[in-house]
Amino acid sequence: MQDVSSLVTQAREGRPRAVARLISLVEGAAPQLREVMAALAPLTGNAYVVGLTGSPGVGKSTSTSALVTAYRRQGKRVGVLAVDPSSPFSGGALLGDRVRMSDHASDPGVYIRSMATRGHLGGLAWSAPQAIRVLDAAGCDVILVETVGVGQSEVEIASQADTSVVLLAPGMGDGIQAAKAGILEIGDVYVVNKADRDGADATARELNHMLSLGESRGPGDWRPPIVKTVAARGEGVDEVVEALEKHRAWMEEHGVLAERRLARASQEVETIAVTALRRRIGDLHGDRRLSALAERIVAGELDPYEAADSLIEGLKES
Amino acid sequence: MQDVSSLVTQAREGRPRAVARLISLVEGAAPQLREVMAALAPLTGNAYVVGLTGSPGVGKSTSTSALVTAYRRQGKRVGVLAVDPSSPFSGGALLGDRVRMSDHASDPGVYIRSMATRGHLGGLAWSAPQAIRVLDAAGCDVILVETVGVGQSEVEIASQADTSVVLLAPGMGDGIQAAKAGILEIGDVYVVNKADRDGADATARELNHMLSLGESRGPGDWRPPIVKTVAARGEGVDEVVEALEKHRAWMEEHGVLAERRLARASQEVETIAVTALRRRIGDLHGDRRLSALAERIVAGELDPYEAADSLIEGLKES
Repeated sequence: MQDVSSLVTQAREGRPRAVARLISLVEGAAPQLREVMAALAPLTGNAYVVGLTGSPGVGKSTSTSALVTAYRRQGKRVGVLAVDPSSPFSGGALLGDRVRMSDHASDPGVYIRSMATRGHLGGLAWSAPQAIRVLDAAGCDVILVETVGVGQSEVEIASQADTSVVLLAPGMGDGIQAAKAGILEIGDVYVVNKADRDGADATARELNHMLSLGESRGPGDWRPPIVKTVAARGEGVDEVVEALEKHRAWMEEHGVLAERRLARASQEVETIAVTALRRRIGDLHGDRRLSALAERIVAGELDPYEAADSLIEGLKES
Repeated sequence: MQDVSSLVTQAREGRPRAVARLISLVEGAAPQLREVMAALAPLTGNAYVVGLTGSPGVGKSTSTSALVTAYRRQGKRVGVLAVDPSSPFSGGALLGDRVRMSDHASDPGVYIRSMATRGHLGGLAWSAPQAIRVLDAAGCDVILVETVGVGQSEVEIASQADTSVVLLAPGMGDGIQAAKAGILEIGDVYVVNKADRDGADATARELNHMLSLGESRGPGDWRPPIVKTVAARGEGVDEVVEALEKHRAWMEEHGVLAERRLARASQEVETIAVTALRRRIGDLHGDRRLSALAERIVAGELDPYEAADSLIEGLKES
């Protein structure tokens, strides 16, 4: 077992195995977790975190891969976190990712990680931010977080990005789906991918219409742009990068970047604290204290609320 | 606003509006919640709680209604809690319940309640046990808890019953579905409903086979029976009641009933405690303490774990 500080040093030198090891340590809540987090803290805060979300089939992985290529041309170090909560047994999406991402497999300036774990400790909402911290501390200039835009926890992960990109494709009824999933509220940049297909203009128009409906923007406010791409051929990808850079500049100018990062940090602390408390309470299972309370409830001597109070009091003493 | 003790008295007299009011108070986490729970505690522990679960279409509501009729013939007071987590907008299932349950609408010995709320406080896992307590304290001899056997939280609710009934119907591929959903581990009694249809015997055989596969029972162990019913015509329902009574007698003889109720009470306390702690942490949002921690994290001066420790310390002082 290597010590944490040498792992961190190697990760900053761009050694992929050191990055992988650090992510495994934070994901798995290893005994060294706290040491790792403490070592990373002063090294974080430099990466620009971009979330990419959209329904299956819109071309998220292809778009992510094309963005990696574009950022690499600028000489930037790029981290990719592909969050797919679907069962590891279904596997299809992950396999697809790996195939497309293999373009970058030999590039030391790119680090790619898939996360498919769910229901593990606090779940993805808990582990994704920790993995982002590792990639940030390892010196990534840009971190692309790719999520399937369906569940609540995926939307939460998207909200942890500095900038959120929502992807759509023509002819998938995405407009309505987007509205349903509340995706119209989270996008800073919208991409209509597969723009060489029929219906791309209609999708962009519909999206533009829906965005203008929900709108009550002031003069300095951000108006999410809609960019058309054919990611598989790299078309429109530079325009996406440009839109991202504009959004970043706008956020810096208006203090929004700092605001978002503060909100993210608050959220992170809260999730860790709730997970820790939940685990402490879980540890009391089989403990004499909880059984004694349960016995008194069954006997009708105590109601569950009084019992919960007493359990919480017990935590304070522990 | 009536006072809590008179509501409880009226509920015990079988007044449905008092029962409804008490359930609303506990569901909605009203200010009187703790007073209600304290008043109910000494009155609970008498009801026999039966969970009914199964995929949509197996005839859960019809079976529940038929069981109500059977228990009413024995002169027992019956409570029904129909837990349907599907959106209130879909409505179909609930409407169906109401129609079938209307047979019992004018019977003062029956109380029927639908719960369709989800994501509210601790969700169904939180509110269903409280509603069961109200029905128990109101003097119900039997409480039938009907859930859709799909999600994790529905399985959890089923686990709060003294006896769990799993319903299947022929020709729905239920066998495989049941195995998938882990339903084969939770059933104390299995019912193959719609037994007048083709394939009922095959379904019962397949189920019997699957149950024997997973089996490593000792001589005194409970062997879940399989009962065939045509609930819509009341056929086989007395046999279900008989199987339930046998299971109850077996549980009492072997100390299993007390064990299950203790486990249920522990689970209940734990859920309430975690919900309370989560809310207390949530209350700190916008609080100076959490913002100060978040600022130090963004500045790289503190890692989120140290911050969470400090947040938990803060809770202890509050």
